[in-house]
Amino acid sequence: MSLIVQKYGGSSVANADRIKNVCRRLAAARDKGNDVVCVVSAMGDTTDDLIELAHQVTSHPDDREMDVLLSTGEIVSSTLLAMGLRGMGYSAVSLSGAQAGIRTDTAHSRARIHSIDPVRVRKELQAGKIVIVAGFQGITRDMDVTTLGRGGSDTTAVALAAALKADSCEIYTDVEGVYTTDPRIVPEARKLDEIGYEEMLELAYHGAKVMHPRAVELGSVYGIPILVASSFTDAPGTLIHGGTAMEIRNKVSGIAHDANIAKITVIGVPDRPGIAAALFEPLANAGISVDTIVQNASVNKITDLTFTVARGDLDKTVNLVKDVAESLGAKDIVTDTTLGKVSIVGAGMQSGAGYAGRMFKALYQGGINIELITTSEIRITCIIAESRLLDAVRILHKAFDLEKP
Amino acid sequence: MSLIVQKYGGSSVANADRIKNVCRRLAAARDKGNDVVCVVSAMGDTTDDLIELAHQVTSHPDDREMDVLLSTGEIVSSTLLAMGLRGMGYSAVSLSGAQAGIRTDTAHSRARIHSIDPVRVRKELQAGKIVIVAGFQGITRDMDVTTLGRGGSDTTAVALAAALKADSCEIYTDVEGVYTTDPRIVPEARKLDEIGYEEMLELAYHGAKVMHPRAVELGSVYGIPILVASSFTDAPGTLIHGGTAMEIRNKVSGIAHDANIAKITVIGVPDRPGIAAALFEPLANAGISVDTIVQNASVNKITDLTFTVARGDLDKTVNLVKDVAESLGAKDIVTDTTLGKVSIVGAGMQSGAGYAGRMFKALYQGGINIELITTSEIRITCIIAESRLLDAVRILHKAFDLEKP
Repeated sequence: MSLIVQKYGGSSVANADRIKNVCRRLAAARDKGNDVVCVVSAMGDTTDDLIELAHQVTSHPDDREMDVLLSTGEIVSSTLLAMGLRGMGYSAVSLSGAQAGIRTDTAHSRARIHSIDPVRVRKELQAGKIVIVAGFQGITRDMDVTTLGRGGSDTTAVALAAALKADSCEIYTDVEGVYTTDPRIVPEARKLDEIGYEEMLELAYHGAKVMHPRAVELGSVYGIPILVASSFTDAPGTLIHGGTAMEIRNKVSGIAHDANIAKITVIGVPDRPGIAAALFEPLANAGISVDTIVQNASVNKITDLTFTVARGDLDKTVNLVKDVAESLGAKDIVTDTTLGKVSIVGAGMQSGAGYAGRMFKALYQGGINIELITTSEIRITCIIAESRLLDAVRILHKAFDLEKP
Repeated sequence: MSLIVQKYGGSSVANADRIKNVCRRLAAARDKGNDVVCVVSAMGDTTDDLIELAHQVTSHPDDREMDVLLSTGEIVSSTLLAMGLRGMGYSAVSLSGAQAGIRTDTAHSRARIHSIDPVRVRKELQAGKIVIVAGFQGITRDMDVTTLGRGGSDTTAVALAAALKADSCEIYTDVEGVYTTDPRIVPEARKLDEIGYEEMLELAYHGAKVMHPRAVELGSVYGIPILVASSFTDAPGTLIHGGTAMEIRNKVSGIAHDANIAKITVIGVPDRPGIAAALFEPLANAGISVDTIVQNASVNKITDLTFTVARGDLDKTVNLVKDVAESLGAKDIVTDTTLGKVSIVGAGMQSGAGYAGRMFKALYQGGINIELITTSEIRITCIIAESRLLDAVRILHKAFDLEKP
């Protein structure tokens, strides 16, 4: 008998009919003789509706209270799944994050899982029940409810799979798996049968929406294979894993894009040790994630420092950087919100050559100017005009023959 | 410094504006130097909406899961009150029934409070916080969520007031207090400044909707004075208490009515010991509350037995009674759903005479036929045609001069 953790997202449980559909899927997994644990998100727009309600009551809702408020969304969907299954004659029980033993730190609205003590989950499984766990939430040592922030329910599923030593972790969503790129932009985009953790991480960090990087990272650390598949079809999905038998090693796996970036250039910074630390430490302390960082070649010990952040963080970032920049004698701060980034990702890139050249040439032939370039061992990212971002995705998808299996 | 428990019902927190209104009321109580605990119901129609959602998923929702589902309604309103207060600059915290230490038995959907261990409530009060407790819910020894059934939030408030040895317990609702009868039926109905526990219990059991008898009973047992008042005005309300200085001892306090009754007559039952027990034990076991019971004088050791139940329980009752009645040799079972009951209640009735006579005469003069009569020490109830029920209320209100202070 295998132990399977299945996670269903908000669109998969958006209404009563979809909830019944998920119940049938869970029942089918159980009928095959598996022990089944289900992690579920809040129904459809529930979370957004609750946030709006909170803002109607007060302009600055308290984090601790907001976490309790939002956690009710996942509890509602978990009980509906459990009662649906019981209505079908299956033994099932819903558990809150607290009841499932998910202990977190006290960082409300973005808590990290500290440990999982799944004693109750195991007890219910042993009693033959399908266990439905409310995703996205945990509890502190003082028994206060926390939420895990973005990608929270995916993270719950992978972490529970690790704690239970599950045989598989399946993330069901509204797409059929991980594609070479967004099929809404490139209709020829091809679903991948499998992908490595590192590649998936790079794709996720650089704009692929299908899974949150945090959950992928957790899967990588604990060696949990993660299947991403559709909750609406029986298509086989994509397996994210760390095995060595990668599909095609010497190849680009996918293309990610992200329009949500803002570029900041600090002009005329003295080129001496400690400058970068002085500029970026306040940002790190404020929880602002800095993406690409590029420092131009120094002329007369004076340099320009360019970096990107999420657009929503721009104002906060400029305010934090301004004071430091002035004290360092910088001449000016220039911002640009008309840019986007496109990335090619593939484990094969670290052994093969010529990927950068092919990428730059394809963009050049498409008349797309490159503003900035950054790379990792398995990724090349170009910052370009946002207005050409989707063109760039299409051009690169074709240039690397990604439509071909 | 006094410790006050205030309870706000669903209509008092039905939207963001009303929630802000309750926040201002709680803040005002705090500003007067009180320690404040608030018990809150789910917003407006939330509970009904959740029940409907459950029925969309399955025709027979499981009680255990339904309790978890419904408990989210009170959690939502409790967090909104807490964040509203924090937005106003007050220190506040929301607690679930579990966090507030409300332990119950395992009778899902109608759990009874077993004990309250309010250690967390006390800790938060000592930290200077206004404590908002989600009403209507508790937790079993196995940490499963339960709900308390009808009148649940009122019961939470009175029980918490008892456990905390609060100085007062205030139930805020959408009416200004306890009236001599429903002011929508008799515009001259008068608000009572005070009323005894027993009178309030009789009124509540026999149709007055303002407070659930269960909470009144708890207040009586623990000697907690309960103020019933409006959450929308500053009118003084009605104090329910056990003091001896009752308003006017020798008088009818109020008139209750209830259209939700069904009459069942078992015809031709042998008149021997044990018959009533045989008939009513299965009903008690099924949780059906039997109200009026009348046994006609026996002729030739054969009698008719008549009783009333809530109309929603009629089918279940007939099914349960049918088998027993047959085995006892009863001739037939007759039901009637065209009846209602009207009651006069007053502590003064136990010492004074002539109340029954005045009641029957007034109904007779109004052309209203009496089907059944039952009494307690402080109450007289007549079962009459439902079509004349509101007339009966008006006639009796006038007959006992209840519009006069």
